[in-house]
Amino acid sequence: MDIKEVAFLAKKASIKLAAADTELKNRALGEIAKLIEKRKEEIFKANKEDIDRSEKESLASPLLKRLKFDESKVSEVISGINSLIELPDPVGKTLASSELDEGLDLYRVSCPIGVIGVIFESRPDALVQISTLCLKSGNSVLLKGGREAINTNRILADIIKDATESVGIPSGWIQLLETRDDVNEMLKMDDCIDLIIPRGSNEFVRYIMENSNIAVLGHADGICHCYVDKGADIKMAVDIVVDSKTQYVAVCNATETLLVNQEVAKDFLPFLIEKIVDKNVELVGCDKTRQIVDVAAASEEDWKTEYLDYKLSIKIVDSTEEAIDHINTYGSGHTDSIISNNKENVETFMNLVDSGNVFWNCSTRFSDGFRYGFGAEVGISTNKIHARGPVGLDGLLIYKYKLVGKGHIVADYASKAKTFKHKKTNKEFIL
Amino acid sequence: MDIKEVAFLAKKASIKLAAADTELKNRALGEIAKLIEKRKEEIFKANKEDIDRSEKESLASPLLKRLKFDESKVSEVISGINSLIELPDPVGKTLASSELDEGLDLYRVSCPIGVIGVIFESRPDALVQISTLCLKSGNSVLLKGGREAINTNRILADIIKDATESVGIPSGWIQLLETRDDVNEMLKMDDCIDLIIPRGSNEFVRYIMENSNIAVLGHADGICHCYVDKGADIKMAVDIVVDSKTQYVAVCNATETLLVNQEVAKDFLPFLIEKIVDKNVELVGCDKTRQIVDVAAASEEDWKTEYLDYKLSIKIVDSTEEAIDHINTYGSGHTDSIISNNKENVETFMNLVDSGNVFWNCSTRFSDGFRYGFGAEVGISTNKIHARGPVGLDGLLIYKYKLVGKGHIVADYASKAKTFKHKKTNKEFIL
Repeated sequence: MDIKEVAFLAKKASIKLAAADTELKNRALGEIAKLIEKRKEEIFKANKEDIDRSEKESLASPLLKRLKFDESKVSEVISGINSLIELPDPVGKTLASSELDEGLDLYRVSCPIGVIGVIFESRPDALVQISTLCLKSGNSVLLKGGREAINTNRILADIIKDATESVGIPSGWIQLLETRDDVNEMLKMDDCIDLIIPRGSNEFVRYIMENSNIAVLGHADGICHCYVDKGADIKMAVDIVVDSKTQYVAVCNATETLLVNQEVAKDFLPFLIEKIVDKNVELVGCDKTRQIVDVAAASEEDWKTEYLDYKLSIKIVDSTEEAIDHINTYGSGHTDSIISNNKENVETFMNLVDSGNVFWNCSTRFSDGFRYGFGAEVGISTNKIHARGPVGLDGLLIYKYKLVGKGHIVADYASKAKTFKHKKTNKEFIL
Repeated sequence: MDIKEVAFLAKKASIKLAAADTELKNRALGEIAKLIEKRKEEIFKANKEDIDRSEKESLASPLLKRLKFDESKVSEVISGINSLIELPDPVGKTLASSELDEGLDLYRVSCPIGVIGVIFESRPDALVQISTLCLKSGNSVLLKGGREAINTNRILADIIKDATESVGIPSGWIQLLETRDDVNEMLKMDDCIDLIIPRGSNEFVRYIMENSNIAVLGHADGICHCYVDKGADIKMAVDIVVDSKTQYVAVCNATETLLVNQEVAKDFLPFLIEKIVDKNVELVGCDKTRQIVDVAAASEEDWKTEYLDYKLSIKIVDSTEEAIDHINTYGSGHTDSIISNNKENVETFMNLVDSGNVFWNCSTRFSDGFRYGFGAEVGISTNKIHARGPVGLDGLLIYKYKLVGKGHIVADYASKAKTFKHKKTNKEFIL
């Protein structure tokens, strides 16, 4: 089947899946969990092939680690599925209702988006997570995983397809793409695919965003900042900056640039450096920083760089406003934190920093769907529309308006024979 | 100033405007209303120039009518502004809140999108409506109106700029673009502009959608359907179809295709035709239709065409499912209505028709922000993400996450020294 047929089938399936009831979707999720447990030896075998081949190809060790799908991953994904079953069905919820006129009732009802294209990194457990989120939210999904996980992904997609079709979920709702050409084809199919979620390197995400007319949910860069305000608790500021930078460096919510108010710089910077050099963090700073501590010079390029590594750029600013300007100029709208004891500055910072996540007195590393309590996340979005910040099930839904009349026609309102009431009601949509 | 500077200024202004308080925004709206009243003679004079020139250029009479900005338009836009002042501020509302852990509170708070680019049709009152909606929702706006209204638009934009800046709204928040080249430049500025709302001809909207990486909110086609189910009340069905087709033909929510269940066709079609020929509606039909009534043959092209005129295509279908398939294949996801007395069929139709607006026993012409009671609308969206159907103030908002801690770091949760509570709270965000 070529990719156009695949996408067309997914679209057809999505129409039926949108109307699948909660019980059927939960039963299908239960079947997936059962079948993963039952066929786990097949998964391990396929995964071993992927790992052996990748070792031969000298895949980097952190990637090898993420590729691994073992007994503990099986219990992890099954427990994830069980939590998902427990969650309320997000589809079919009446979000608002009003009586337009006697006998003419308007309802805004949540519904799936349709067909989601997901391009994900090497972790094969992401395939299970994403496709079960799509199933619970009633969306079809086209999945493109990393080449290194191809065998594991195939068997997992196969299991999910078998499990769901066996209970009556429409065939075609989940499909695996395997080549980069498929992805390029997918980017053009705005007639069948409604949303693309790319997870991967910055360059790749940027490529997707620039080469598709389909809406893209996600982020390219994660250039996050900590700003230490004057009067901040020095010990707290050091702990937060060290955590934000070093708790895990290879992720989008790690801090890349530290902004320090000049009034606190002399007390704070030497203390920070004492703590952070222990972690082998390379430091670069602006001229004012270098007058206080001995670090290399930061270039203009540093403020725009997501290091994803043990490296931190430092800039001294005169005011909260200068910190905000710097963040809005060089940041990526991801996550930025102020460490301060001054409520007025905090309020200014949280209102004016134009990022999806603005924090006060805590680490930027909290910016994450699991830590936010969303159960699971499809990604973190730096978009300005639809969904922003960590995105859970909610981001896979939209709504439709359902209007129920008794023969109402517009001519009666145009002629003023009738007038609208527009009364907010609090009714569930039930026929 | 070139368009890049204009957009950059708008972006800078949007940051401050996002933090403008309700009282300031409402005061600015009040000033706009006052200044329009005060300077209305200037508006009328500019509008006369536009109308005189357009008459010389033989602009079509419906367009000339829409171009007119007279005393009654003044009271209309002023009363629109006064209603907008009465509406609650949509910015800064806490949409959800939870306690992640003791002292670590997460809030989802509504905020403006940022910079909106609006391209609108000949009506100059649309300029006032759109810019005041953007102001109330805290967004900067770049406006491109029709060439025929250039003088009226200039004076209106000038008044709005003067009125708002006089009370302290940041300069640059509203700016008028005047050339098609400006629009083409705007489409490339995804670093400064967050959302484009095009209102105009289908070809134009499609051109915008295909030529920008910026998110576009709106619709190209409005191919709406009525489906008359078996067992439908014939008289009601005729009234609804006549209203849906003829109440106002030049608009996106007028019906273009009528689907009729074969079991009701022989009773319904002759009765409909008797009523609808009075309105000079040209009819084309499928083969089965032509066996019952004497109409011209419909081609494949007819099912895909938004006539925006006194023309209706008719197709006889075997079942609700066939009607749904037809709509999902040829429709534009705008508005579709079922006329039926069978709840099961209605439920199937409303769940499976993949349109922003699905109606039961009422005219497709109700699909409109004013009729829905949204006060005003920025457009009707056939998008599958962000906002769908008629879009009011809500569509101009997104949210940011605000996280408030007391020195919380992620290392404590990674080491299991602390665990998350994830308790839903019902707290307003207040520092």
